[in-house]
Amino acid sequence: MSAQALLDRWNGCGYYRHIGMRVLRADADGSEFEIEIGDEHLQAYGTAHGGIVAGLVDAAMGLAILGRVPDGEGCATVEMKLNFVAPAMPGRIQGLGRVVSEGRRTVVAWGEARDDTGRLVACGLGTFQRIPPSS
Amino acid sequence: MSAQALLDRWNGCGYYRHIGMRVLRADADGSEFEIEIGDEHLQAYGTAHGGIVAGLVDAAMGLAILGRVPDGEGCATVEMKLNFVAPAMPGRIQGLGRVVSEGRRTVVAWGEARDDTGRLVACGLGTFQRIPPSS
Amino acid sequence: MSAQALLDRWNGCGYYRHIGMRVLRADADGSEFEIEIGDEHLQAYGTAHGGIVAGLVDAAMGLAILGRVPDGEGCATVEMKLNFVAPAMPGRIQGLGRVVSEGRRTVVAWGEARDDTGRLVACGLGTFQRIPPSS
Amino acid sequence: MSAQALLDRWNGCGYYRHIGMRVLRADADGSEFEIEIGDEHLQAYGTAHGGIVAGLVDAAMGLAILGRVPDGEGCATVEMKLNFVAPAMPGRIQGLGRVVSEGRRTVVAWGEARDDTGRLVACGLGTFQRIPPSS
Repeated sequence: MSAQALLDRWNGCGYYRHIGMRVLRADADGSEFEIEIGDEHLQAYGTAHGGIVAGLVDAAMGLAILGRVPDGEGCATVEMKLNFVAPAMPGRIQGLGRVVSEGRRTVVAWGEARDDTGRLVACGLGTFQRIPPSS
Repeated sequence: MSAQALLDRWNGCGYYRHIGMRVLRADADGSEFEIEIGDEHLQAYGTAHGGIVAGLVDAAMGLAILGRVPDGEGCATVEMKLNFVAPAMPGRIQGLGRVVSEGRRTVVAWGEARDDTGRLVACGLGTFQRIPPSS
Repeated sequence: MSAQALLDRWNGCGYYRHIGMRVLRADADGSEFEIEIGDEHLQAYGTAHGGIVAGLVDAAMGLAILGRVPDGEGCATVEMKLNFVAPAMPGRIQGLGRVVSEGRRTVVAWGEARDDTGRLVACGLGTFQRIPPSS
Repeated sequence: MSAQALLDRWNGCGYYRHIGMRVLRADADGSEFEIEIGDEHLQAYGTAHGGIVAGLVDAAMGLAILGRVPDGEGCATVEMKLNFVAPAMPGRIQGLGRVVSEGRRTVVAWGEARDDTGRLVACGLGTFQRIPPSS
């Protein structure tokens, strides 16, 4: 699968489309995402729900891994931990992911979300299981 | 705010409506949620995206806290950690939350997601900041 | 290895002896530990260092797994998350562990530490890798 | 308190001395620790117990914060999450901490442990509460 095909595959899935989240880049150096926070992402206090931010950080970590492992491999989130350090206000939020440690079966990744001023909104650390092409 | 008003407030917010997630109960014993996983929740492998499951567990923990603290108080997720133990397949998923430790400023909560057979899909532990009514 | 041999093996290892931590029980229902917090466990503020509490909770989760898997299997902590909800003061602290979800390769466990009054000191959620007897 | 007094205070506490862990540096750029893993740190499989590694990473995060906040302030670990990516074998292990996000009441920090070859042994993300000088 080409790099563009990987982006197209994910940008075309139901969740990304429904949420309006897009992966812009996923290669050996990491991943980059964007989402425009609107009314449909807000919880009752008027800021983006934790699920939106968590989905962005989870995806940024996962695609950072897919941009790095051999073609055809998949990965599944075993667990992740997220700190929400500032509210995600309506507007553009950027997601960034990178691999911290790559093992044969398990990969640890870092993900973060930043607003348009570059301010950190959330950061996370996750554990992913590599899924061989044949499985 | 009555117990019903609390549920109505959250069920009416943008994220809950857009995702199709509903809180059924939030009281001193905990919270109960439901969501029907459909195409709009799926990632490229055909199971619910981590953001959906994370949003459900985060919300279940948060509403378990709101169902317990004095009327008018709010809470914000400081951080959470989630284990994804089984894929969330299309169909109904239940979210459950309960308070583990209630401090004056910080509350620790447990949340979990189960499928219709009762199988554990995900579980998590989160730290929340209490927000006084006046702020 | 008998149940007693499992306890003896762990109670005899360098860390348990140096720290003064003991596993009292490890079976299919979970594990139970104890430690007497003294001067050698304290950080500069006069309460037990996070490493002591973390070691207790990690061990409680790990032995809860070893008390449940087939004889000869091992397990390794992939990651863990811990909430410190109250200071661990000098005196007896109890550690408790139990399995939350048992997969073929990965087990999720819960651990907690309580003081002699039963008050929760810390709780945690960890991911462990099963290590087959032959490896 | 001078920078050296801060190091002396912590290096003199019971846990650091009993474990043989030392903070070498704690300033606005982060913290640096060292520990020589020996028999007294090992679990039954012959590598350093998770409590030793967790204590090192927790301390590295905490001292990174103390090296940065105004003199006299303290901090307490609210929670932390750690990934154990390689076994900590007998020999020297280095601990490094740095602040990720500094809020008025809460600080998020990163900590890691590396062996003498520079290989990552563990990494973690923690949430700390700032404790004002007067309290």
